[in-house]
Amino acid sequence: MTMKPISLDQSRAFGRLSVLQPVMDLASLLTAERVEQARVEMGAGMSYNYAAKPVDAPVLETLQQLADELALVEQYRDLLNGAVMNGSEQRMVLHHLTRGKVDGDVVWRGKNLAQFYQQQLARIATFSRRVHAGEICGSDGERFTQVCQIGIGGSDLGPRAMYLALAHGARQRGELRMEASFISNVDPDDAGQVLSQLDLPRTLFILVSKSGTTQETLTNETLVRQALERQGLESSRHLVAVTSESSPLAGNANFLTSFFMDDFVGGRFSSTSAVGATVLMLALGETVCREFLAGAHEQDCRALNPCITENAALLDALIGVYERNVLGFSATAVLPYSQALRRFPAHLQQLDMESNGKSVNRQGQPVHYPTGPLVFGEPGTNGQHSFYQLLHQGTDRIALQFIGFLQAQGGDGPMVQDSSSQQKLNANLIAQIVAFAKGQRHDDPNKVFVGQRPSSLVSAPQLTPWVLGALLAHYENKVMFQGFLWNINSFDQEGVQLGKCLTGQVLSGQVEDPSLRAFSRVFDL
Amino acid sequence: MTMKPISLDQSRAFGRLSVLQPVMDLASLLTAERVEQARVEMGAGMSYNYAAKPVDAPVLETLQQLADELALVEQYRDLLNGAVMNGSEQRMVLHHLTRGKVDGDVVWRGKNLAQFYQQQLARIATFSRRVHAGEICGSDGERFTQVCQIGIGGSDLGPRAMYLALAHGARQRGELRMEASFISNVDPDDAGQVLSQLDLPRTLFILVSKSGTTQETLTNETLVRQALERQGLESSRHLVAVTSESSPLAGNANFLTSFFMDDFVGGRFSSTSAVGATVLMLALGETVCREFLAGAHEQDCRALNPCITENAALLDALIGVYERNVLGFSATAVLPYSQALRRFPAHLQQLDMESNGKSVNRQGQPVHYPTGPLVFGEPGTNGQHSFYQLLHQGTDRIALQFIGFLQAQGGDGPMVQDSSSQQKLNANLIAQIVAFAKGQRHDDPNKVFVGQRPSSLVSAPQLTPWVLGALLAHYENKVMFQGFLWNINSFDQEGVQLGKCLTGQVLSGQVEDPSLRAFSRVFDL
Repeated sequence: MTMKPISLDQSRAFGRLSVLQPVMDLASLLTAERVEQARVEMGAGMSYNYAAKPVDAPVLETLQQLADELALVEQYRDLLNGAVMNGSEQRMVLHHLTRGKVDGDVVWRGKNLAQFYQQQLARIATFSRRVHAGEICGSDGERFTQVCQIGIGGSDLGPRAMYLALAHGARQRGELRMEASFISNVDPDDAGQVLSQLDLPRTLFILVSKSGTTQETLTNETLVRQALERQGLESSRHLVAVTSESSPLAGNANFLTSFFMDDFVGGRFSSTSAVGATVLMLALGETVCREFLAGAHEQDCRALNPCITENAALLDALIGVYERNVLGFSATAVLPYSQALRRFPAHLQQLDMESNGKSVNRQGQPVHYPTGPLVFGEPGTNGQHSFYQLLHQGTDRIALQFIGFLQAQGGDGPMVQDSSSQQKLNANLIAQIVAFAKGQRHDDPNKVFVGQRPSSLVSAPQLTPWVLGALLAHYENKVMFQGFLWNINSFDQEGVQLGKCLTGQVLSGQVEDPSLRAFSRVFDL
Repeated sequence: MTMKPISLDQSRAFGRLSVLQPVMDLASLLTAERVEQARVEMGAGMSYNYAAKPVDAPVLETLQQLADELALVEQYRDLLNGAVMNGSEQRMVLHHLTRGKVDGDVVWRGKNLAQFYQQQLARIATFSRRVHAGEICGSDGERFTQVCQIGIGGSDLGPRAMYLALAHGARQRGELRMEASFISNVDPDDAGQVLSQLDLPRTLFILVSKSGTTQETLTNETLVRQALERQGLESSRHLVAVTSESSPLAGNANFLTSFFMDDFVGGRFSSTSAVGATVLMLALGETVCREFLAGAHEQDCRALNPCITENAALLDALIGVYERNVLGFSATAVLPYSQALRRFPAHLQQLDMESNGKSVNRQGQPVHYPTGPLVFGEPGTNGQHSFYQLLHQGTDRIALQFIGFLQAQGGDGPMVQDSSSQQKLNANLIAQIVAFAKGQRHDDPNKVFVGQRPSSLVSAPQLTPWVLGALLAHYENKVMFQGFLWNINSFDQEGVQLGKCLTGQVLSGQVEDPSLRAFSRVFDL
């Protein structure tokens, strides 16, 4: 890239955006024509619809200028080609490469990294086939029928959300190869609860830690090995490791084998690397996993389009920054109308808040504008019976992102009062979009809805593996573009270090701070 | 009550609070002595610690004046004694009575309501004993070993969170009577996924709908009955109803029996009524359920104490309003260091956001100050590896509420590097409190933590049924007191109505709004 990244508040286009007349009435903006036209194709019948977002032609034009001025797509291309985009850790950022090459080759210390990631996928596929065929069995000869991932943060939330999104559909089609479960928390009740429901002689564990030193994960490894040994099983024949090649877990005889990731794939971006692929291939098979990666890759390619109305991730990012930095929204709700996506918001919460919850720009200076918002969500229609009250009638406005599918994964449900369950689900979804945007006048002040609550909609024919991969990459790329807009490093996480350091003091009895000593006494530490 | 409720901005004490010098440095406020002293006893070794909250002696004194001026405890007493506190629906608010009488009797149309709630509990207990004894069986004679609740919103989130909080401990002690599961979403993949894992001849379903007309729940009832009938089972012998006495489900021959709630217990406050008690007694037994209610009742009694430093719920409410309306926080994170509480934040999200996400006061006028905050959360340590980055280093400050327990439910886990899993869990918890409050200076700007992030801590020896009930009631009472402070009706939910109305239009083909018609076409509706 020829230009040095500039901060949002130095941008001329952002200056114009800030003084532009905002859309005063979402109700009149939201016409039938706009619903049909304000959409960006994402492939396979999937699209991003921004009809109910407060962006009219002048705002869109200025957002395009902002994207051009800050060279967002060029920065993305640099990232793809191995620029050091994680400056504080001096690392490349290559999660896109785990699902296919979008632009040039990236070679590092003589190693072609696209090939490296593909080799790992191939190794995982071979291993999975052997497990499914019963060639690799538990230590007392039982076939593996269950897989349990031990990992935390990015080694948990993404893979768990992806598995849950696809498991029911696969089960319905008779294609679920192994049931998967997950142990993450250092709370022993987490592992205890999961282990109490597993058939250990038939369970294969995947231990995931890039560094091989994650406290929670290694503690749970011990707990799991003890449980296996108590049943007379050889724990080394029930565990595989997913780690970096330089970690103490790599090539370690206490594991059946190890699959590799590297420092260029951050934890929260690792669902398409060995971290997610191992559990997905074992549970769902290679075909499903490859389709999932293909959906992600397609969005990565589309994210190179410099025209913002043809690039869903880029436009979503720009609208989000407009809502955050011009309109003053502090939070975003992700609202999938799909129970299969019940943990997808928790994954996005990590992806977004850990990436863009930063106060220092890429030149090491404090930023003078809000960066990443709070992200939360639950599936509709459940959320409607919960926190939607505040979204409709609370004193703060919250940005809304709906996700919906024409068909359910396992049949659309019985006809009750002339509509199927799936039709009811989707009728609720679209009713909410319009209710949020347009509100309602009423003589009873308790029944007044002021409306003016903007939302977007990602829709697709069905939540298939391809669509799930596309959804995942869409949000990853959105978060990346927003990081470029805020001129922050979206790829480090220095904010997790201080707690680790103080935890170490408590556990080693070397506490410096008197208040921390006092809290230690509360917990008999 | 002698006085008419006044709004926050009419309060003299709030005026003083707004101009009081705020605590400028949480790091120097948080001393060892303060950790020991800034706590409110809640009984059974449980306490609310506000040492790391930005409230010094002058702020506390003014908060006490605010509580007195707005007559918060007197309003609570009025509520207990049957005042019409849900004005928009002209209803009393009596969820406290479901766990015991705190103050006077409430008699309505000749019925003593404390007795009514107790009678329902007794009926549920008798029914549960007969199920456990095998006297009530499935239609082909199998004993019931599984229970599945069908309900949404308050009929789902609270009971589900309570069951999950206690199930693992009960299982470890060999006291889990029946495994429970939950169907909530109208998405047919929710019911499909749950049903695929149930042994239907051995499953008893609890259908929960106060009105007997909840769209999602009745749709799922049909889906469940069809699944039962497909296996040749008589569905009427596999379902019980929890509903109001006037509902079409009451005394309906399509159910084994019905248990009753009434209009004076709102859905989100119904975990201690028949809505929660039926599934809890069936799954966990009467003793556990009664202890749970006793813990809630104890907090209800303590909430009558007019001294704010002796009334945890009242103080928590006041500090929350101070943070929201004086310090400008827009969100609260609930962070339980307990995997058993993994869905407790989702319940609190409903409880708080549906109660206090309002913009109109009890006199029907618009409020001119922020009301209920956004509430979200995930268990620690998982959250540490996810959104804590933003909590530490993001540009917005978020109010934090920690919850922790000295002991795990099922043993404290293996000793790894000289500490148990539970010790690691709690070391992390207290390290976070101090890290958030005190931060860290550093030469590398990426490693700077500005601190000044306030948090509270509810701690207890262990997550027992009593402690769970106490936690639940603490938050219910906090939300109630905050509603009094904001002078809003915390007990209605008019914000859910508009969406229902527009959904009805879509499903009946009677859509008025052209944009809604256009969205209908997107989903083939």
